[in-house]
Amino acid sequence: MDKRQLWERYQEYLYVSDELGLMLDISRMNFPPDFFDRMESGIQKAFTDMAALEGGAIANPDEQRMVGHYWLRNPSLAPTPAIATEIEGTLARVQTFAAHIHAGKVCAPNGRPFTRLLVVGIGGSALGPQFVADSLGSAADRLKVHFFDNTDPDGMDRVLAEIGPALAETLTLVISKSGGTKETRNGMLEAREAYRKAGLDFGKYAVAITGAGSELDATAVAEGWLARFPMWDWVGGRTSVTSAVGLLPAALQGLDIDGLLAGARLCDETTRSPIARANPAALLALMWHYATDGRGTKDMVVLPYKDRLLLFSRYLQQLIMESIGKETDLDGRVVNQGLTVYGNKGSTDQHAYVQQLREGIPNFFATFIEVLADREGRSLLVEPDVTSGDYLAGFLQGTRTALYDNGRESMTITVEKLDARAVGALIALYERAVGLYASLVNINAYHQPGVEAGKKAAGEVLALQGNILAALRRIAGKAFTAEELAAELGEEETETVFRILLHLAANPDHGVEMERSESFCTGSFAAKG
Amino acid sequence: MDKRQLWERYQEYLYVSDELGLMLDISRMNFPPDFFDRMESGIQKAFTDMAALEGGAIANPDEQRMVGHYWLRNPSLAPTPAIATEIEGTLARVQTFAAHIHAGKVCAPNGRPFTRLLVVGIGGSALGPQFVADSLGSAADRLKVHFFDNTDPDGMDRVLAEIGPALAETLTLVISKSGGTKETRNGMLEAREAYRKAGLDFGKYAVAITGAGSELDATAVAEGWLARFPMWDWVGGRTSVTSAVGLLPAALQGLDIDGLLAGARLCDETTRSPIARANPAALLALMWHYATDGRGTKDMVVLPYKDRLLLFSRYLQQLIMESIGKETDLDGRVVNQGLTVYGNKGSTDQHAYVQQLREGIPNFFATFIEVLADREGRSLLVEPDVTSGDYLAGFLQGTRTALYDNGRESMTITVEKLDARAVGALIALYERAVGLYASLVNINAYHQPGVEAGKKAAGEVLALQGNILAALRRIAGKAFTAEELAAELGEEETETVFRILLHLAANPDHGVEMERSESFCTGSFAAKG
Repeated sequence: MDKRQLWERYQEYLYVSDELGLMLDISRMNFPPDFFDRMESGIQKAFTDMAALEGGAIANPDEQRMVGHYWLRNPSLAPTPAIATEIEGTLARVQTFAAHIHAGKVCAPNGRPFTRLLVVGIGGSALGPQFVADSLGSAADRLKVHFFDNTDPDGMDRVLAEIGPALAETLTLVISKSGGTKETRNGMLEAREAYRKAGLDFGKYAVAITGAGSELDATAVAEGWLARFPMWDWVGGRTSVTSAVGLLPAALQGLDIDGLLAGARLCDETTRSPIARANPAALLALMWHYATDGRGTKDMVVLPYKDRLLLFSRYLQQLIMESIGKETDLDGRVVNQGLTVYGNKGSTDQHAYVQQLREGIPNFFATFIEVLADREGRSLLVEPDVTSGDYLAGFLQGTRTALYDNGRESMTITVEKLDARAVGALIALYERAVGLYASLVNINAYHQPGVEAGKKAAGEVLALQGNILAALRRIAGKAFTAEELAAELGEEETETVFRILLHLAANPDHGVEMERSESFCTGSFAAKG
Repeated sequence: MDKRQLWERYQEYLYVSDELGLMLDISRMNFPPDFFDRMESGIQKAFTDMAALEGGAIANPDEQRMVGHYWLRNPSLAPTPAIATEIEGTLARVQTFAAHIHAGKVCAPNGRPFTRLLVVGIGGSALGPQFVADSLGSAADRLKVHFFDNTDPDGMDRVLAEIGPALAETLTLVISKSGGTKETRNGMLEAREAYRKAGLDFGKYAVAITGAGSELDATAVAEGWLARFPMWDWVGGRTSVTSAVGLLPAALQGLDIDGLLAGARLCDETTRSPIARANPAALLALMWHYATDGRGTKDMVVLPYKDRLLLFSRYLQQLIMESIGKETDLDGRVVNQGLTVYGNKGSTDQHAYVQQLREGIPNFFATFIEVLADREGRSLLVEPDVTSGDYLAGFLQGTRTALYDNGRESMTITVEKLDARAVGALIALYERAVGLYASLVNINAYHQPGVEAGKKAAGEVLALQGNILAALRRIAGKAFTAEELAAELGEEETETVFRILLHLAANPDHGVEMERSESFCTGSFAAKG
């Protein structure tokens, strides 16, 4: 295609929303002229499915649940007045609670206002809040935010060391929809222990976001935590960022959650258009389908040219890969679907893996994300009439061209300014694109059956660890090889036994020691006497 | 394979190095029994190539350069005494300079010791330092480290706001091998401007790491910077972390750079073994070859179960993808090689994309990274006889099993303890694995010709921006559409002109304004009168 034709193609397909301050350019995806016609019935079916979902249909047939994240931005769409009231009431409580914290009406037991926030959560209860915190936060935040997003002891120690004595002015927010996620439970217990060691009563610093009646909810009640906010079964973890899960930490941080919700709501309205060419969520879903043959044959590389969007690809990994990566379709056929997402930020990544994107294996399509406004205020000129931001924009255009010239396809999302509205719009845009794409490829985007297998296997490992410790302690001081111990336990998983023993012996907590032998795998293990 | 067979396979292939405190388990990669025999001549050729490289051969034929990162850990291997002396002398200067900074012998002009470090760099001059800083840093660091790793104005503003008044006690380290990287040049200028606005003389806070005689070197001399450290043409950006590029910021931060170098040196020694089965770098390279048919047909998912290793996959993206992602092989044949890397950390990622890994498209192999020691000191019990670290270990084992049970392959690297030695060893392990793999697939791992195309295209965009501004200003106030302006300039790239104009109009720096028309792409632009 010559440059004239590229310019025509650019104009022909450019999606622009003045209201959203958002553009989507798909002209550098090489779909054929009849592509939209061929996909029309599929995308109309997807719109119909989405309308049913928004109307309160059981959109997650596996778990017999409604899927209601769109209602969070517009409670009037909720299928029952009770749900609408709950959404509105919770939002009002979020706002009020944050205002009370900021005003010192709710303060630390030492009488000082809270200055820090420790968020304990994982998966959907961390990735959304982390993305929002990083994309909109600044040195002027009302509370400085920290995260426990794993069950790594050293990781938690490091966060606690960073907080230091400020723990006495740190609000801790524990987020777990089910209330039973072990990483989060462990994080809560480690945090509680840190407060205890500092002579502080955890309940007076703690807030919960969880399903009513969950284990976490019960703990919060029993210990008299400062506040509890609800999670509903019709909000999935990976689409929970516009519920209290994302809004409460953002509000506490001092971010503009009204703007975030307004951006998401407006994007929802825009992306309800049944005209695919005028619907940016449909355009994304269709381009994903085109680029990957509807089977995930190519990776999606997400390249925001903005430091604040560094975590967007990580957020999208969960939103997209957990939604689309499924073994079976809605008819039960094995399809092994998926859509792999990775990326960090430009122009930094140009100095990392863009070499491969341009010249190497053509196993991807790129999504550039451009932010037109460079910064608050005017810029220094780094050369006559050139700013740092001009360079950033130039690198984006240059890389897009360099990729295209080598036959690598890309889309470009442009937002005018990276504020709360834009972040809300980006979240809503991709949430809907995922839902539409799932319909196009006929899968349930709202469950995650594969996650259970790993949890179950981990539970078995921990149960086995208990048996190992019991066996070692029955004859303290007696040394067993992994094979001997497995035989003793009637356990076939000798390898797992060995690996558990290695971990036990590397830590002081269970009194297990390893004695090396000439062959590493026949080393023996004993409980200290 | 039943559990007995798996245990036997585990023992048969397990690589263990007591000295390194490192294990590599490849038993869950399903290579056939004759795999090592089939690859023997290839890997022996790779060892020979590597020995030549380490001996000072021209290993980057494109750029006629030696490749000497291994000498950095053992200067006695350097091909000339002059190089050995330079390495040793620079290391000594790094240690001395850091000691002087810590002792306040070199202090801020206000007489106070430096408390913060701003590192300005991109690509190899940022990813390595960032990985080391994050993997080994803590609240007890001697200097708190910040990074400018992009040319994003807002990103730099945010870092500067975080530093705030502490800028007066902030040492700034500018790292650019060529001295001409625009992002780094811009970051340096923005930093200098921030110091100037604070009434501070930049040169008294600034240190350079760059090639002798580069533009940056000349600036540092002219402005009387505190110190200059060399970069040599035989150290590539993505393998520069054990040169001053990685060592100086780490030493300033207070990290154990002797340990880092010792771990790398020991790993180098270990991975010089010509017996593939006893050489973990060779094992990695061979497994990559097996898993991806030597053509990058599968993605490498890197899953460290340790918060401190979160940035490892990002570091590896550059090291591996920039090295392996090449259009042509050493014989000039078009091969479009590559090896895609992504990942964050476990168990967090289990709640994100592991759903897809387990059930979705089988387009990857996983590398688990396990750290046996959970934390400093003893752990809280989160359940009877169970710690948070036991959970982390259990999740790793559980996920490894859940993936294997669904036919997804994985390797596991286990390190005893995540200290400077271990980080040095991991760096050296992957550096050598990349080099060996490149030999196996017959490509030059040490150049990056594709990066230039994007830079060149960006340069053209900026030159065009200059022409656009000149044209708009010739008749200030007169409005042009992109098409009119392109015609005026005799420029075919109307699309690029339009996109440049959008960015100019969104920022106050160049006095360009947009006037909307009914169709977005026919909006017109004028320079303010």
